[in-house]
Formats: sequence, structure tokens, C-alpha cells
Amino acid sequence: MSKIAQTPEPPYYAVIFTSLRTEGDNGYGEMTERMVKPASQQPGFLGVESVRENIGITVSYWSDFESIKAWKQNAEHLIAQKQGREVWYKEFKTRISKVENHD
Amino acid sequence: MSKIAQTPEPPYYAVIFTSLRTEGDNGYGEMTERMVKPASQQPGFLGVESVRENIGITVSYWSDFESIKAWKQNAEHLIAQKQGREVWYKEFKTRISKVENHD
Repeated sequence: MSKIAQTPEPPYYAVIFTSLRTEGDNGYGEMTERMVKPASQQPGFLGVESVRENIGITVSYWSDFESIKAWKQNAEHLIAQKQGREVWYKEFKTRISKVENHD
Repeated sequence: MSKIAQTPEPPYYAVIFTSLRTEGDNGYGEMTERMVKPASQQPGFLGVESVRENIGITVSYWSDFESIKAWKQNAEHLIAQKQGREVWYKEFKTRISKVENHD
């Protein structure tokens, strides 16, 4: 159950991942659960918000760009990314952005 | 029905609005429909993605920061923001971020 993430004062980074799923689970649910812990233990991880209806939006928050790059290269995450491209997602977009202010 | 937004090459801006609703509709559905057209007609508007389950995430994309400020000051939108704070949302967070790259 997703909540509104508690993040520090800007600047920090947000990775906006928007996706459209293929039909069927194909191990997707198991993978998302398996990814939560290593992601949240990454240095620089600040929080995550995730919602899915017809499309899914997952926004993860990070202290800096280097932490995002490190998570992108994580071994387990690389396997999940490959499965995502090949099996789980019909279409997706990843946007890396710098949060300049919030209220 | 939300889709993945088609956005130009970065840089551009993303407004990440995460919210937790109060119980009941209280005119919320009507307002969101009423806001779509004026928002999408604003100069600098690039697209929007929106999903709600327990929390809602709406990400709107803009060409520049000035366009975001102009939409925030739009008369109809100011009324909706006031209703949002007083009636529709238990909790919300608005983050303004600059998209630096995407794939």
C-alpha cells in the first residue's frame, strides 16, 4: 500500500517511471516485491510512490544522480529491467528529473 | 483513460502531484473533468499522466517553469486548489522538477 513519500528539502531527484503492462502476471508481482528491499537499501534512496490502474506510475526519490545510476546498474535490477523490456511492459518511459521545489 | 505522455527531448518540466483523498466525491469528479481542457490549452503544456488507487499520482509536463507558474495562477484553477485544500484532499504534495533525461 503506497503512501505519499516523506522527502527532505529540495533539491533532490525523482525518477518518474510510467508503464503499460502486458496481459498476465508472468512473475511480475513476485519481482516487484523482491525489488523493494534492495532498492530501499540503496545509498541515496529517499522514498517511492507507486500506483497502477490502466497505466502505472512509480516515482522514486533519490538524493543525487549518482545514486540513481548505481541502482540502475544493480545486478538484480538489471535482470528485472531485461524482463521488463521483454515480458512485462508493452510500453514504458523513464524520466529522470531534479526536484527544485515542493509544497 | 490515461496514457503515457508523448513529450519532447529534455529539458522540460514535470509537476508531480501526489494526493490522498477524503471520503466521498464532493464535486471532485466534475472538477477534474472541468480542469482538463483549460490546463491542456495553457501555453507550455506538454501532457499529463494520472492514476489513482489508494493514493493518486498526477504528473503534468511543461516546457518551462513560467508556464507552470501561469497555470498555478489561473482563476478557475485557484478555485479548484482552494477546494482541494479544504474539501477533497486529506494530504497532498506538489513537487516541481526539471526532467534532465529520459528513455
